[in-house]
Amino acid sequence: MAPRFTVTYFIRAADAAEAKSRALDIALEQTVEIPRHVVPKGYVEEEILGRLESLETDPNSRQGFLATISYSEDDIGGDFLQFLNIVFGNSSIKPGLKVEDIGLSPGILDLCKGPRHGIAGLRARAGIGESPLLMSAIKPVGLSTKELARLAHDFALGGMHYVKDDHGLVDQKTSPFDERLKACVEAVGEANARSGAKTGFVPNVTGPANAIIERAKQAQEAGAGGIMIAPALAGYDVIRTLAADPDFTLPIVSHPAFSGANVVSPDCGFSHRTFFGTLHRLMGADAVIYPNFGGRFGFTREECVSIADACSVELGGVKTIVPAPGGGMTLNRVAEMRETYGNDIMYLVGGALLEQDNLVEACQRLCDAVNA
Amino acid sequence: MAPRFTVTYFIRAADAAEAKSRALDIALEQTVEIPRHVVPKGYVEEEILGRLESLETDPNSRQGFLATISYSEDDIGGDFLQFLNIVFGNSSIKPGLKVEDIGLSPGILDLCKGPRHGIAGLRARAGIGESPLLMSAIKPVGLSTKELARLAHDFALGGMHYVKDDHGLVDQKTSPFDERLKACVEAVGEANARSGAKTGFVPNVTGPANAIIERAKQAQEAGAGGIMIAPALAGYDVIRTLAADPDFTLPIVSHPAFSGANVVSPDCGFSHRTFFGTLHRLMGADAVIYPNFGGRFGFTREECVSIADACSVELGGVKTIVPAPGGGMTLNRVAEMRETYGNDIMYLVGGALLEQDNLVEACQRLCDAVNA
Repeated sequence: MAPRFTVTYFIRAADAAEAKSRALDIALEQTVEIPRHVVPKGYVEEEILGRLESLETDPNSRQGFLATISYSEDDIGGDFLQFLNIVFGNSSIKPGLKVEDIGLSPGILDLCKGPRHGIAGLRARAGIGESPLLMSAIKPVGLSTKELARLAHDFALGGMHYVKDDHGLVDQKTSPFDERLKACVEAVGEANARSGAKTGFVPNVTGPANAIIERAKQAQEAGAGGIMIAPALAGYDVIRTLAADPDFTLPIVSHPAFSGANVVSPDCGFSHRTFFGTLHRLMGADAVIYPNFGGRFGFTREECVSIADACSVELGGVKTIVPAPGGGMTLNRVAEMRETYGNDIMYLVGGALLEQDNLVEACQRLCDAVNA
Repeated sequence: MAPRFTVTYFIRAADAAEAKSRALDIALEQTVEIPRHVVPKGYVEEEILGRLESLETDPNSRQGFLATISYSEDDIGGDFLQFLNIVFGNSSIKPGLKVEDIGLSPGILDLCKGPRHGIAGLRARAGIGESPLLMSAIKPVGLSTKELARLAHDFALGGMHYVKDDHGLVDQKTSPFDERLKACVEAVGEANARSGAKTGFVPNVTGPANAIIERAKQAQEAGAGGIMIAPALAGYDVIRTLAADPDFTLPIVSHPAFSGANVVSPDCGFSHRTFFGTLHRLMGADAVIYPNFGGRFGFTREECVSIADACSVELGGVKTIVPAPGGGMTLNRVAEMRETYGNDIMYLVGGALLEQDNLVEACQRLCDAVNA
């Protein structure tokens, strides 16, 4: 028998009998997808079929239950997308089900080596100790490459450790990818030469499915300090493939674009910690961007803390990654964020800095506040 | 000024003022992502910034409004993932927002040529006229290649037009991808030789991000009759890239695994018709699998009909595709499905056939019922 990993699902149900029936359905749906009475005896029934390991009333007082189902590593066939498919492929389409937690097994950890750098590597590359990381974004779409490169320069000179493309910057005619990549790497390099810092430029990597991996490598060759990818758009194996590629050595920042439905509804998708924490670590993201509480989005402080915890909790040796809460963050929020996250955080501040007359000074004020 | 496309959002809001404020937030969030008062005058404000075109009370009596926002083709930069990002990237993370409809523009249609075959091509390849298509799936995971190939043979001999891998079949040791592909193409070929039919084998294409496109081409070289891809896992540009590749000529079947959160909640994601209809046509899927009403999933008849309508409605010249409702379909459901969908449907029946003692005869009964 192969080792088994587990998935704990929240199941909306009126009573334990309904919950058990739904849990057994999940075990069937996620693996053999045929009626129970025709599941072949022997290997398929004993190994491949999901197995209900426990069922309990939801401890968080939701109208439902927590069911833990185990799946064999033999279900996965060494394929990360198939791992996600087993976790929640078809069952994602059934309302009133949510993935609460995932319990790993040796084979899954072997398939998902996790991030190359993690928070320690991001700090080392930025040349800092155990203090918070700072990242900002050049924007908006529609500015010329020259204007965007100027912003990248000023963010770097102001002390941001990483300067990323806005996730809407792709290959627009006002600032083509190749041109912007080159200009921003140069601009950040000039700022570093003046300041002695080691700021890295992080381009947004997207594009046709057969070009994404190549663009990531192009960014590395051009001297970028990392890359950003939105896995819900580009595909959930792209980050894992790059993080496992011995020829690719840049840190990877994950962007949450298009992933919202996976977390915002109480009735479907994933718990915040599992989606932004566990899955992103398994994918190999070094930093995970998500909307901070109290900004433009609806995440609660508790949900955000659960993400940060999942970024650093022991996970079979997978490196600790850095939570990068953003979305309407301002200088006034720093004290609260420090109290919430401590030092193991990447402050992602964009618009609030771009509002200031002097961008370099605005960045410096932010850095001072963060390191106060 | 470039042509503009539109997205109509359902916005949960107590009154028109709140809805307008949320709509203007979307226009900002999806494009420039900086505070409104620092949006640069001129090109950025006039072209790049989303523009609220209309706002009306929701005609379907939900507690909210419909807002139509236009976006410039200049926002897209020729990148399909960026198109999806503009449609619903960050806003997907805000609860109480749903994409109801998308209105295309010439540039988007140029970027998304749509499917190569469509329903007409799927029928032509199967050698049938304007009658319904039939597809089944070999399963479960855990069977040997020999057992799975035998099922493929019998499905083909029984009259199914397409025989696909279960979407959980990847590269498991019990049936490695290469071995299964070869064996099933041969088995279906033998059945075709006996019956004179033109059944096609449709392998499930997944795997590492840098291998998916290659596996699709491998399937073509091996003589497959199509491929199946789950875009919510593999990435939303994979199908488009393959459909646009002059060297790739197989039909593409889309599988809904992992996409559920995009549709099941009334409070986030997409309308059923836009996600499974419009987006899949734009991606270039020839057939789109989704859960039928009255099966194991919760879609209503009305939602399913809206998907089928969106598969065939005029869409700037993009080919009509075939809805492939599945998920617990049985022989007893055929009459109701015929009445609901007419002839422009691909019946996807799996488990109900595998329950029967004689698979070939069970398929024949299904074919007879469908064509009665």
